[in-house]
Amino acid sequence: MESVESMKIPAVKGTRDFYPEDMAVRNWIIDGWKRVSLRNGFEEYDGPIFEYLTMFQIKSGDEIVEQLFSLKDRGGRDLALRPEITPTLARMVNQRINSLPRPIKWFSVPRLFRAERPQKGRLREFFQWNIDIIGETNAFGKILADAEVIFTTVDYLRSVGLTDNDIKVKISSRELLSAYLKALGTSEEKLESIYAVLDKKAKLPPETFEALLKEQFPEPAGFKEMVNKVLEFMNVGSMKELEQFTKKHGLTMDSPYNDMDMLFYQLDNMGVGNFCKYEPGIVRGLAYYTGIVFEVHDIRGDLRAICGGGRYDNLLKNFGGPAIPATGMGMGDCVLEILLKEKVLLEKRVPKKQTDYFVASLGVGTAPGDNVHQRFAQRTGIAPSSMGAIEAVYRIIAELRLRGKSANFSYKMGTISSQLKQASEQNAKYCIIIGDEFKENKLAIKDMATGQQELIEVDKFFEKIRS
Amino acid sequence: MESVESMKIPAVKGTRDFYPEDMAVRNWIIDGWKRVSLRNGFEEYDGPIFEYLTMFQIKSGDEIVEQLFSLKDRGGRDLALRPEITPTLARMVNQRINSLPRPIKWFSVPRLFRAERPQKGRLREFFQWNIDIIGETNAFGKILADAEVIFTTVDYLRSVGLTDNDIKVKISSRELLSAYLKALGTSEEKLESIYAVLDKKAKLPPETFEALLKEQFPEPAGFKEMVNKVLEFMNVGSMKELEQFTKKHGLTMDSPYNDMDMLFYQLDNMGVGNFCKYEPGIVRGLAYYTGIVFEVHDIRGDLRAICGGGRYDNLLKNFGGPAIPATGMGMGDCVLEILLKEKVLLEKRVPKKQTDYFVASLGVGTAPGDNVHQRFAQRTGIAPSSMGAIEAVYRIIAELRLRGKSANFSYKMGTISSQLKQASEQNAKYCIIIGDEFKENKLAIKDMATGQQELIEVDKFFEKIRS
Repeated sequence: MESVESMKIPAVKGTRDFYPEDMAVRNWIIDGWKRVSLRNGFEEYDGPIFEYLTMFQIKSGDEIVEQLFSLKDRGGRDLALRPEITPTLARMVNQRINSLPRPIKWFSVPRLFRAERPQKGRLREFFQWNIDIIGETNAFGKILADAEVIFTTVDYLRSVGLTDNDIKVKISSRELLSAYLKALGTSEEKLESIYAVLDKKAKLPPETFEALLKEQFPEPAGFKEMVNKVLEFMNVGSMKELEQFTKKHGLTMDSPYNDMDMLFYQLDNMGVGNFCKYEPGIVRGLAYYTGIVFEVHDIRGDLRAICGGGRYDNLLKNFGGPAIPATGMGMGDCVLEILLKEKVLLEKRVPKKQTDYFVASLGVGTAPGDNVHQRFAQRTGIAPSSMGAIEAVYRIIAELRLRGKSANFSYKMGTISSQLKQASEQNAKYCIIIGDEFKENKLAIKDMATGQQELIEVDKFFEKIRS
Repeated sequence: MESVESMKIPAVKGTRDFYPEDMAVRNWIIDGWKRVSLRNGFEEYDGPIFEYLTMFQIKSGDEIVEQLFSLKDRGGRDLALRPEITPTLARMVNQRINSLPRPIKWFSVPRLFRAERPQKGRLREFFQWNIDIIGETNAFGKILADAEVIFTTVDYLRSVGLTDNDIKVKISSRELLSAYLKALGTSEEKLESIYAVLDKKAKLPPETFEALLKEQFPEPAGFKEMVNKVLEFMNVGSMKELEQFTKKHGLTMDSPYNDMDMLFYQLDNMGVGNFCKYEPGIVRGLAYYTGIVFEVHDIRGDLRAICGGGRYDNLLKNFGGPAIPATGMGMGDCVLEILLKEKVLLEKRVPKKQTDYFVASLGVGTAPGDNVHQRFAQRTGIAPSSMGAIEAVYRIIAELRLRGKSANFSYKMGTISSQLKQASEQNAKYCIIIGDEFKENKLAIKDMATGQQELIEVDKFFEKIRS
């Protein structure tokens, strides 16, 4: 080995190198997202990795805007790496708003970027599954769309082996919350800043949260009572309790309450009610949500949210399009992967590397007598017969691959037992052994599962593969 | 439709929006790259989208360095969006050089970025298939590795329907070229700048090329003769002609010539010789190539190279690792897509959207009499029976999806004929019709290919699906 001459440059902090074993996990997660999206009737789209910076300053949350990776194009225009795909989705839908049949049911698996401090479940570069249903305007249809988004989310999480003992979909409603806050006398303009505080509830110690909440209400008129009423509402733990709560306080929140009730009915109807729970603490950080909002959490509550989503009926309009209702969900790969690892589901479910055929050789080969091989043998001292042996292997693997089969071999071509060991390490279904019988144009085919071995003529073998 | 309130922001020039129909093409291309890589025994890896800027200043060609998209992290360190993945590959391999079994056979499908002027076949953001074989040191094994890289390249291009009437693999050797230039008296230090000129041959008018070439040789000693000899070498059109050329001029380029001869022998042995051709005009722009180099071109010669590759035995060392031989190939999606479109292969081969089951409804449904539905009906005027009808559809699609089947329906739920039309637009294999028989717990299943329809009990239907 030679001395190190040039500098070693490390990877950027908060990014990941995907070695083959990491890539297998990433592919398994992403392939699952894609498969479940397709079976739920969503079509795939994607946009560019970077957009004009202003795109992300319109409606993304403050946290996101602070964490943008910005760059410039050759003309000096400000660009940013996408921190989320929803603005791109709004741009793309608006561009073809008159030709796309509605509702639009789309999904995407964008690679996203946030210049934040790397920590558990948060990286600077990650993948996020997004599903959205856009353009369903009927009052009942909107609830069905919300239900279908939540169903699809659960459909994926269930398909990778998570149960209602592992995770919970916590659902709330911004309409319900705003109706309650307004009933308490809060003005429309105050809502957004109160949402921002309520969203932090789960992440803060109770005293800090209460202190922040108090800042939102003007002293002294009914100040303490107001805060207590908000806290009381935030502690309602189920739809049943919510019903009692509204009755007790004589509240009229009929329309958002009935919508939520209907949503839970539909989730039951689709067989995922056991995963779902009313939880007023779910508010979501992003400013663009307008109706139901939800997050999926691990039941132990050790991790950040696995995913989040909700209804955002004004977003297309904010991006220069018409007012069209929309609902969707985004799930990153980082927290999900941590949970799946904890539950030993990665180990159980990520498929192992597999090969259809491993082609081994006993090293027997006709020594090619042509000029090319003779000169090569003279130059390098490599025996023509060993060249002939590996050339036979190459012919067989080339034929197999042409027929769509995965086929591998050993460059080293050691002893037959070391080659068989490699075949089994690569999870080969069959091992083809090129031995003495090859001179009579025959191959030995070993079934790696049963250990059985049969001799077959080369031509017949390839005929069998074709059929 | 409402008035446009906010600004419409366009996409950045040189980037692409992938609407579902574009995404289908992108997925088909990338899935093909992955499938062929796997069947040829390559394992997938990937790195981050950005690296430290210095990574790309070590050994990438000047053109690439000029076209970097650069950005800064929060600490003010200079980063760049990756313009190629080879430096990342070198970094990753060097990080685990002592634990990775060799040869390393890896592939990747990175998204890459170049801040160049967008033009036909060149975009600022694109995908590139990369395959590499690293660490095969035996003289014969190195040629086999080069042959396997070219074979895998052809294996893909052939699998999407391209023939040797459409494309040609043009192969050359930097060793052969340097041996010839040295035989003419050129010094080692001059080689790189001469390569850079020769690489432009196909892109320049003959006079401009000749003028540039003349600048490379010192006037007056043998100046004209030198240029003519280089031009003569560059016009050799086959291995046969090369043999005659070396004999005629009494050249001793034995070792690189014999290597090339052996490479063509192996390509024939693997059944792809008909796609391959010796072409001294192939030099490749990147500075890190050391041995054989190749490009695939469309036969008409209208397009840029479809892909390029070759041997780069010093790259790992340049990135702070040991000197380990390597060979590889990179193929972008842009030129490939243009060629596949021209040959009508996209139209013929990109799979159409497909659904296993489309669930249609005649609108019959038991009106749910519970409080939730009654209140919803009062508020919205939507008939409970129509809610009941779509809820039946939802139960069926939820069950189908849970069983891994793709299932879709119409949010509008119009006439049965409009629903059947949608089923056929979505390429559904079966259409489930929920009609009057549903009251007796039966579904009508219509085979969309044959038009045949059968009645089956709901439970029996799902039992059949499970098995």
